[in-house]
Amino acid sequence: MAVYTEVDDAELRAFVAAYDIGDVVSAKGIAEGVENSNYLLQTTRGPWILTLYEKRVAPADLPFFMGLMEHCAARGIDCPLPIHGRDGAVIRSLAGRPAVIVSFLNGMSPRRVEARHCGPLGEALAGLHLAVADFPMRRANALSVEGWARLVAQARPRADEVAPGLGDEIARELDEIAPRWPRDLPASVIHADLFPNNVFFLDDRLSGLIDFYFACNDFLAYDVAICLNAWCFEPDLSFNATKALRLTEGYMRRRALQPCEIEALPLLARGAAFRFLLTRLYDWLHVPKGALVNVLDPLEYLRKLRFHRSVRSAADYGL
Amino acid sequence: MAVYTEVDDAELRAFVAAYDIGDVVSAKGIAEGVENSNYLLQTTRGPWILTLYEKRVAPADLPFFMGLMEHCAARGIDCPLPIHGRDGAVIRSLAGRPAVIVSFLNGMSPRRVEARHCGPLGEALAGLHLAVADFPMRRANALSVEGWARLVAQARPRADEVAPGLGDEIARELDEIAPRWPRDLPASVIHADLFPNNVFFLDDRLSGLIDFYFACNDFLAYDVAICLNAWCFEPDLSFNATKALRLTEGYMRRRALQPCEIEALPLLARGAAFRFLLTRLYDWLHVPKGALVNVLDPLEYLRKLRFHRSVRSAADYGL
Repeated sequence: MAVYTEVDDAELRAFVAAYDIGDVVSAKGIAEGVENSNYLLQTTRGPWILTLYEKRVAPADLPFFMGLMEHCAARGIDCPLPIHGRDGAVIRSLAGRPAVIVSFLNGMSPRRVEARHCGPLGEALAGLHLAVADFPMRRANALSVEGWARLVAQARPRADEVAPGLGDEIARELDEIAPRWPRDLPASVIHADLFPNNVFFLDDRLSGLIDFYFACNDFLAYDVAICLNAWCFEPDLSFNATKALRLTEGYMRRRALQPCEIEALPLLARGAAFRFLLTRLYDWLHVPKGALVNVLDPLEYLRKLRFHRSVRSAADYGL
Repeated sequence: MAVYTEVDDAELRAFVAAYDIGDVVSAKGIAEGVENSNYLLQTTRGPWILTLYEKRVAPADLPFFMGLMEHCAARGIDCPLPIHGRDGAVIRSLAGRPAVIVSFLNGMSPRRVEARHCGPLGEALAGLHLAVADFPMRRANALSVEGWARLVAQARPRADEVAPGLGDEIARELDEIAPRWPRDLPASVIHADLFPNNVFFLDDRLSGLIDFYFACNDFLAYDVAICLNAWCFEPDLSFNATKALRLTEGYMRRRALQPCEIEALPLLARGAAFRFLLTRLYDWLHVPKGALVNVLDPLEYLRKLRFHRSVRSAADYGL
């Protein structure tokens, strides 16, 4: 659920008048996007998405995100296209917040991931990686290995409130992963958050990738590792090797993973699980009592992390 | 916020295939409707609203609500039109819940009510009252004076947790209102919940009335009294006589209130405030600790109730 800012209709009409997209006929707050307010805007020319950025997205990062989506859309990626106002500007202000309008994408997120979703997902991820090769802007990944050390230090004193021994386990994990973390894999811009709720399908066709607000420069194979975590475990947290096979096969149809990337994949997958464990743990420990938010269970990623720790080689992921 | 039930895309496609409304291209959970799950459904033929009924709406009442909306829409009221499936049925099942598809209405709820909204509101309310005159179904108002006695009995022992003296005040209020409550005013089906979030405007034109799930048989003037409470107080809870004047003037342009209705209006307004005070108090006292719901402040309606108690005659409402 995500509508944090209510928009007055007169303000909205004035806002939309700065674009050449027709007149507003409706605006409904939608349950999409983790940390922004999103509206499905209907105008006389069709549907659009209006996003107001709340605290979690830094305004200084918006030109990167908008530039990235525009770059990818121009290269045929099914992602939201930021709409320019009549004056050329993409990022404006509404209800005191940075706000943009992007194109509407058809399709629905899979509520239950099935193996048939994972091939198209892999292909789309590789397509995205090919499309960003010449994207000129950069954004550091604040949630990579350097960021983990800070998160571990913050969470460790209270981690045992979530599970006994968790504080020690995350400290030990950091000690094991950090020195071995790769330094020179193929890198470019990655999506970094390509969970099922950020991918739309129409029947079996992948019709859209959304929510680029964690995109950053990092190893391309790390994006594959994130998807292995987000798409290839069953609700009971058992690993589904068929889904992993479909995902990596799909990816390889569009972009061949290099031997160094394949070799690094188990560690990258372990690191990706660690990253989501740590941020969920942070949210879990920092949510105000009684706050009206859903906090995701950090232990889901502890179990995924332990799985990746047990993996012998990338062959376990179908490679 | 209201999406309680997530719908699987394959299930949704099968559901929509039972209608002649095109193919699904998107479905977004929307923040609309108090106790149901609502989706803005886009098909190849345009937007629609899909509603899944959660616990608060009794399935046995659905034929009344659907029949009422269909009756009103056929008489030119801008309200959702229930869509029949190819087999003629309106009420189906989706994700284990009763579910319907209704037409999409353009417009937006006013975030800030202004006097210019109140004239069109009054006209639309009177128009609704004229349209329902020949609606053949009936539904008792469970939240009228008999229902209040039960709510007072339940809330009284703990009401002082909300405000000192509140338990005695609601008991005294019931004792004062119940014996004087009117018995023979003009009656028919009323909306009974026509708050600003249930009314859409496009510019200054009223474009839609939604959320008929409290509709019931009761005094027509009681609907006016509910609107006086819901539309004519400022955020600081001062009464805005101009808004009340616009509302009653607008209503009278379409349907003349009879002298007995005008005379009863202060008491009806007091009863309406009491009704929302009691149900909010109930919700306040019964919400589970830490539940992910917004509970509305009962004391807002205590202050409105005290205002109506001070009113000398319907002239204070512009009549």
